Amino acid sequence: MVSIKIGLFGLGTVGCGIVDVIAKARNANAEIKRICVRDKNKQRKTAVAPEIITDSKDDIFNDAEINLIVEVIDDPNASYEIVTEALRKRIPVVSGNKTMLARHLPELIKLQQEYSTALLYDASACGSIPVIRNLEEYYDNDLLLEVKGILNGSSNYILSQVFDHNESYNNALKRAQDYGYAESDPSFDIDGYDSLFKLVIITVHALGVYVSPDDVFTYGISHISDYDINYAKEKNRKLKLVAQVIKINDDNFCMFVMPEFVAPSRYIYSVDDEYNGIVIRGECYDRQFMFGKGAGSLPTASSILSDIMARLHGYKYEYKKMNYAARPSYTTDIKLKVYIRYQHTNIPELLPFIKIHERYNSEKTNYVVGDIILSDLLRFSDILNADDVFIANIPNFFEDTEYKSSNETI
Amino acid sequence: MVSIKIGLFGLGTVGCGIVDVIAKARNANAEIKRICVRDKNKQRKTAVAPEIITDSKDDIFNDAEINLIVEVIDDPNASYEIVTEALRKRIPVVSGNKTMLARHLPELIKLQQEYSTALLYDASACGSIPVIRNLEEYYDNDLLLEVKGILNGSSNYILSQVFDHNESYNNALKRAQDYGYAESDPSFDIDGYDSLFKLVIITVHALGVYVSPDDVFTYGISHISDYDINYAKEKNRKLKLVAQVIKINDDNFCMFVMPEFVAPSRYIYSVDDEYNGIVIRGECYDRQFMFGKGAGSLPTASSILSDIMARLHGYKYEYKKMNYAARPSYTTDIKLKVYIRYQHTNIPELLPFIKIHERYNSEKTNYVVGDIILSDLLRFSDILNADDVFIANIPNFFEDTEYKSSNETI
Repeated sequence: MVSIKIGLFGLGTVGCGIVDVIAKARNANAEIKRICVRDKNKQRKTAVAPEIITDSKDDIFNDAEINLIVEVIDDPNASYEIVTEALRKRIPVVSGNKTMLARHLPELIKLQQEYSTALLYDASACGSIPVIRNLEEYYDNDLLLEVKGILNGSSNYILSQVFDHNESYNNALKRAQDYGYAESDPSFDIDGYDSLFKLVIITVHALGVYVSPDDVFTYGISHISDYDINYAKEKNRKLKLVAQVIKINDDNFCMFVMPEFVAPSRYIYSVDDEYNGIVIRGECYDRQFMFGKGAGSLPTASSILSDIMARLHGYKYEYKKMNYAARPSYTTDIKLKVYIRYQHTNIPELLPFIKIHERYNSEKTNYVVGDIILSDLLRFSDILNADDVFIANIPNFFEDTEYKSSNETI
Repeated sequence: MVSIKIGLFGLGTVGCGIVDVIAKARNANAEIKRICVRDKNKQRKTAVAPEIITDSKDDIFNDAEINLIVEVIDDPNASYEIVTEALRKRIPVVSGNKTMLARHLPELIKLQQEYSTALLYDASACGSIPVIRNLEEYYDNDLLLEVKGILNGSSNYILSQVFDHNESYNNALKRAQDYGYAESDPSFDIDGYDSLFKLVIITVHALGVYVSPDDVFTYGISHISDYDINYAKEKNRKLKLVAQVIKINDDNFCMFVMPEFVAPSRYIYSVDDEYNGIVIRGECYDRQFMFGKGAGSLPTASSILSDIMARLHGYKYEYKKMNYAARPSYTTDIKLKVYIRYQHTNIPELLPFIKIHERYNSEKTNYVVGDIILSDLLRFSDILNADDVFIANIPNFFEDTEYKSSNETI
């Protein structure tokens, strides 16, 4: 049996988790041979022999015994440098950097083929939930219609506090930061970019198509107000930050990240706190639901251990669906039904609604519920990002499409 | 790309589903070349060219073009004959027969190695939920502690009718039969054997250990009475038929199939109707929950399609965990806390309880809640199977063990 000698980049929260998890995995036949960090003298949460720590990447790249590189560093540029250098040197590499992956996947797929070297990154989307591996291996056929889920633990924790514990948004955000669920700059999580990058990676493995993150409508929860929360509660809904990719017919699919009104009957309604949940919908198997801890040191590290074990058995992603003759195309030409709340910005005037279903005006706030084309949301992002505006999706309103998500309307 | 020419055995509910699903899978590169059935002249639910239907198995085994055999017949003996003949002829084979697999897995694993030929059977446990593949590939390390779930759709449908719709047990059973969820002889489902066989297969892939079905305590729901249902409702619990395999420490694990009082906070509490749900618990990732349709023509067929596609890419189970140096051993020497309801059979006298926590006697019924060793439940199965007796597990009561499932007590 091959034994795995790992060169690890990064010894932060996840890096320390990997050290702990590998120590627990008695049958893994894996060993961390060298760890490259920025600051050799920093105090660490884990006990590592000081002599294996280095601040020179060449101590890893030039060590002929190292047969797997694992990188769990925050900086996407440094992550890109490490991953591409590893592939070019034909050293298999495991990465957890979703920002880097979502931006560079097409190039990284080519590099893997050119140098016949594997890059694995199951930990990058939803930590311990094996979503990429299942899309790649198990749902590797034409039956897949939709992948939809709560992909970001921090924003979900905040929304859970607000909806289940009647906490204010600001207090919930502060508590998430205290618990270490949200970064000190939480915009990556709460503005939806973390979910977006995961969705881009998932879509490559779900439908075999890469869509640049810049082309995907992404809207987070930072503008949410008590008006929106009350509106949702009156309708017996929770607001959740949902990422979704949906085949609207055999030839086209759409994708977006947006707060959504979720009914109690939906699986993702019960995905609370820092958990992630994903629904995979197919033509014959209806809905599959996977649920688990999406973030945190040990869940992410255990997912990286799965990638490490997979390398032990020579596993690599085949990107089979990218070679399918009939791949669907990305479209934003799809009608959505949305709720938009606003104060000063005159939303009904400024946005090209196809139809307005509801309109509410008061001295304190206003909202409109209407049909609008997804591409127009992208086009008018600036207006939607005004401080006094908040938009949320009212789900399952695909008209004139072959596959209806369900009959539910809010 | 290899193309798959399938020889199919069986054209019942699942067989017809496979024909439909393969027709939908445009990129699958798979074709059903021959179908072997018992009765060539029977009316079928699916449109198949009559000339590919045969009643002679040799028409499949002697067709050199056929490179994959798929068998979805009910009879475990015939299934065994087909699968072993296929392996000996070095033709890869996909099987959905859980009874046959649970009884013959050790021999079938040897045959696969001896003839370097793959047998796949993801559809055999929980239909469209990819539980075997995930245990084999993703949770292939020492961190796994427990797999616990609702593995049988028919009995779960009946219990859902009883608990959520206040239906009587007998009416619910009848309705399940009308809907085709339960066989006309429903004992396979409701006496727990279907769950047991799935659990035996799951345990091979979860812990690398085969346990004969005869050695596993198995108790179904056919003795359930209104007293038990009311008891559960008073405690705000649902009774579910639960199969579980649990590592109780590094060296030992236990397994059993038994009705269980499930609290609303548990994931499986919300697994209703004909659905299946599985919780995979690990040392670092806490709990993963997978949920989906566990039975039915198309869900099962789509799972078989996943096995077919896997063969297209040369996939086979490696049974890696069977080669681990440190595999845990099966034990029944574990203390459980159980509820036993009885009428005439004097349960507190007849069973060797370690401790009795509660005792209730009335003119109409009696019950006892006590601690008992699992091996004593196996030993006194006859008593527990008396018509007036019903037993259910009160979960998470492992004492003196390293890993506690949770702090919950009923």
